[in-house]
Amino acid sequence: MTSLSQFRNVVPDGRVFSGDDVAGRATSYWNPSPLQCRALIAPMSASELSGVLRTCVASRQSVVTHGGLTGCVAGAESSSRDVVVSTEAMRSIVEIDHQEGIAVVEAGVRLQTLQEAVAREGWYFPLDLGARGSCTIGGNIATNAGGINVLRYGMTRSLVLGLEAVTAQGEVISSLNRMMKNNAGYDVKQLFIGSEGTLGIVTRAVLRLFPRPQHRLDVMVALRTFSHVIAFLQRMKRRFSGSLSAFEVMWGDYYRAVTQEGGHTAPLPRDHAFYVIAQAEGSEAELSEAQFESCVADALESGEIADAVIPQSGSQSRSLWQVREDFEAILTPAPVYLYDVSLPLATMEQYVRDVQFAVRERWSGSVAHVLGHVADGNLHLFVQPNESGDFHLESDQAVYEPLKAIGGSVSAEHGIGCEKLRWLPHSRSKQEIGLMKTLKNAMDPNGVLNPGRIISGVNQ
Amino acid sequence: MTSLSQFRNVVPDGRVFSGDDVAGRATSYWNPSPLQCRALIAPMSASELSGVLRTCVASRQSVVTHGGLTGCVAGAESSSRDVVVSTEAMRSIVEIDHQEGIAVVEAGVRLQTLQEAVAREGWYFPLDLGARGSCTIGGNIATNAGGINVLRYGMTRSLVLGLEAVTAQGEVISSLNRMMKNNAGYDVKQLFIGSEGTLGIVTRAVLRLFPRPQHRLDVMVALRTFSHVIAFLQRMKRRFSGSLSAFEVMWGDYYRAVTQEGGHTAPLPRDHAFYVIAQAEGSEAELSEAQFESCVADALESGEIADAVIPQSGSQSRSLWQVREDFEAILTPAPVYLYDVSLPLATMEQYVRDVQFAVRERWSGSVAHVLGHVADGNLHLFVQPNESGDFHLESDQAVYEPLKAIGGSVSAEHGIGCEKLRWLPHSRSKQEIGLMKTLKNAMDPNGVLNPGRIISGVNQ
Repeated sequence: MTSLSQFRNVVPDGRVFSGDDVAGRATSYWNPSPLQCRALIAPMSASELSGVLRTCVASRQSVVTHGGLTGCVAGAESSSRDVVVSTEAMRSIVEIDHQEGIAVVEAGVRLQTLQEAVAREGWYFPLDLGARGSCTIGGNIATNAGGINVLRYGMTRSLVLGLEAVTAQGEVISSLNRMMKNNAGYDVKQLFIGSEGTLGIVTRAVLRLFPRPQHRLDVMVALRTFSHVIAFLQRMKRRFSGSLSAFEVMWGDYYRAVTQEGGHTAPLPRDHAFYVIAQAEGSEAELSEAQFESCVADALESGEIADAVIPQSGSQSRSLWQVREDFEAILTPAPVYLYDVSLPLATMEQYVRDVQFAVRERWSGSVAHVLGHVADGNLHLFVQPNESGDFHLESDQAVYEPLKAIGGSVSAEHGIGCEKLRWLPHSRSKQEIGLMKTLKNAMDPNGVLNPGRIISGVNQ
Repeated sequence: MTSLSQFRNVVPDGRVFSGDDVAGRATSYWNPSPLQCRALIAPMSASELSGVLRTCVASRQSVVTHGGLTGCVAGAESSSRDVVVSTEAMRSIVEIDHQEGIAVVEAGVRLQTLQEAVAREGWYFPLDLGARGSCTIGGNIATNAGGINVLRYGMTRSLVLGLEAVTAQGEVISSLNRMMKNNAGYDVKQLFIGSEGTLGIVTRAVLRLFPRPQHRLDVMVALRTFSHVIAFLQRMKRRFSGSLSAFEVMWGDYYRAVTQEGGHTAPLPRDHAFYVIAQAEGSEAELSEAQFESCVADALESGEIADAVIPQSGSQSRSLWQVREDFEAILTPAPVYLYDVSLPLATMEQYVRDVQFAVRERWSGSVAHVLGHVADGNLHLFVQPNESGDFHLESDQAVYEPLKAIGGSVSAEHGIGCEKLRWLPHSRSKQEIGLMKTLKNAMDPNGVLNPGRIISGVNQ
């Protein structure tokens, strides 16, 4: 077993924590119980991290990586046998290059810190999600984070031009490409994006920036059927092809729950089947308010949408978005199980009906709230049995089981972590999982990096 | 050695060619000499291909893949010892899904065939390049093709939602995801994109479609300095953030060469230092002609651009683009060496000067023409010694040598193939190349797939 002094030789300045220094930390954003690990190490560079991993691999010491600890699939939870590597000492925004429109950042930089830093210099980093204040760029990359702007800007993968990562063997892979186009051999950085720290630990990245959108236009609409939701989506896509940045759907039950007494003010009457918040963004030259309003008016006139409200101020716009984003109040009584799935649009309405039926059959007083980034095929579900007990597995079954037949994914954006391990074969074939194992074995033959995540324990 | 009858058992109907049937074919678009190979096999499905590869791997038979044979780095050239797998019998557009905006296609479908098929149904597949009439979707994916719309839509990688591929072991990896978001485990399809058929052979893909742009606006401008080129690019990016679809720069010498007597009509006077064709595209709601013209007028007024012409018809627009795209006339006298590199914008002007200086020093009567997709960091160079002889290596040295120090890439979009093997270490570190080899060894331990491409022969 490696002694802590070996780590202290590699990572000096009191950046190897153990005992009470560790126990005073929480396990994660979701789990307040004291952090379990042999030691928490905070390297300041890829080179220090390389030393840590060389030490670990020599003694088969398992390593769990910590970013912002906001992940939803228990991907960063450690045991008392693990060494934790935290990116908390790598918090520099190294460079904002105005000519290229790129930022070079260390892995531990918080998403919101980066968003604000580039905004101050007239730029826009479009990755955005609820955890922005805590999550880190390294974690965003390791999980290929999605969020609310995927429709226009893609997942994290499409925002990463280059990166530096350290492999299980302690090899520093410096692939800090700055160009949009680089086909010189395999694009090795793809291996580290979305593999949840199981193939290497990201230490630095070159990210794409965009001109700050001068205009952002929102509308909330109410619709009678899911077919109308799809028709309205197609209309918005045709009219605002490059500018449509969000298209968020809320099923009626969710909308009614978050706008009940004591909750949010309802921007539209509460008796509709579906609600959508659509957003377009762009420069002044690209996006006219009049065009946006006329598109909504056309949809109203044709009967495609039943009602609509266009906010007249920033604060009105924020109120609309709160209905979508601030749902903590309805997450009682416990237990409530939160899901993140994706599936083809054509199967979505029936899928939600099937899940809701299964949930109500099992727990007569239950609800299953549904909302999501529908244009990306991504739904979030909250299953609330309204009974006390641990129903996680049964609830998982109700949500994941129907995905298999329709080609859906048990994880649209949260990843697999530890929590969805057993469900991976619902979304990936034996051959795909076999190939994942081939990669893992090739790059981390001793299985030291984030063991037990993604593919461990899955039968081939 | 495998006998041809073994292949004929797996791939029936006369789709195993040898002897004269093979010798009657050309080696590639660039090389008219008779095709060399033991046999050319045209499987109709992943399952047939699986049988072929299982047969090959059992006897360590090397396999070279043929798509449209338009690649620029000799990636598909075979010897008499190789078996060639051609995707020519996989030419179906399997499905165009209007609700999702996706197309499912077989690997052998020609790019232009797909472009036209989806256009007939109101959609747009934005990948576009000169070889569109011959190149195949499978080849586009295998090489992560770029082309003229990368600025807005990204490389081929960002257009592929899912794919089916066959590994060296004959394993069919069916990863035909249809959703924008799917984080269920490693994104194994990335392995097959841009790895030039060395890790597996793509047989089918799910591709993203976009609404057909209703508007496309072009302008050609003349500029005095490269700083003005960058300033004009930043202006266009700010004004047309999501809509700017092309920004093509031509150095003055190139422009003068293609517009000399007997060549293209010059749309603008021929004495400027730089010429740019910029294009924005979008829906009617997004893109106003008046805004586009006023942006160009502002740039003129500020002195950023020296002259400008906005085409008033489709045929005028095509004439502008011909100046950029149709350069065959200047590719004499032989030899002329064509290059495809990428590099940071800030280093571009000096880099071109350095290359031009080195070329003129070596061959006093030589020219080095330069043009490219500058917003993507991508330049194409044509080195023309104007002396007879084989100067390939010396010319390569002049072009590739300076890239090493500035973090440029010896291949922006063409790949490495056989031709750029020795230059890969100019753009990739020892560790990156080591990781490429780890992948290759893990996925094709017998080295049967496209041997000698990308990393073979490179010293670690």
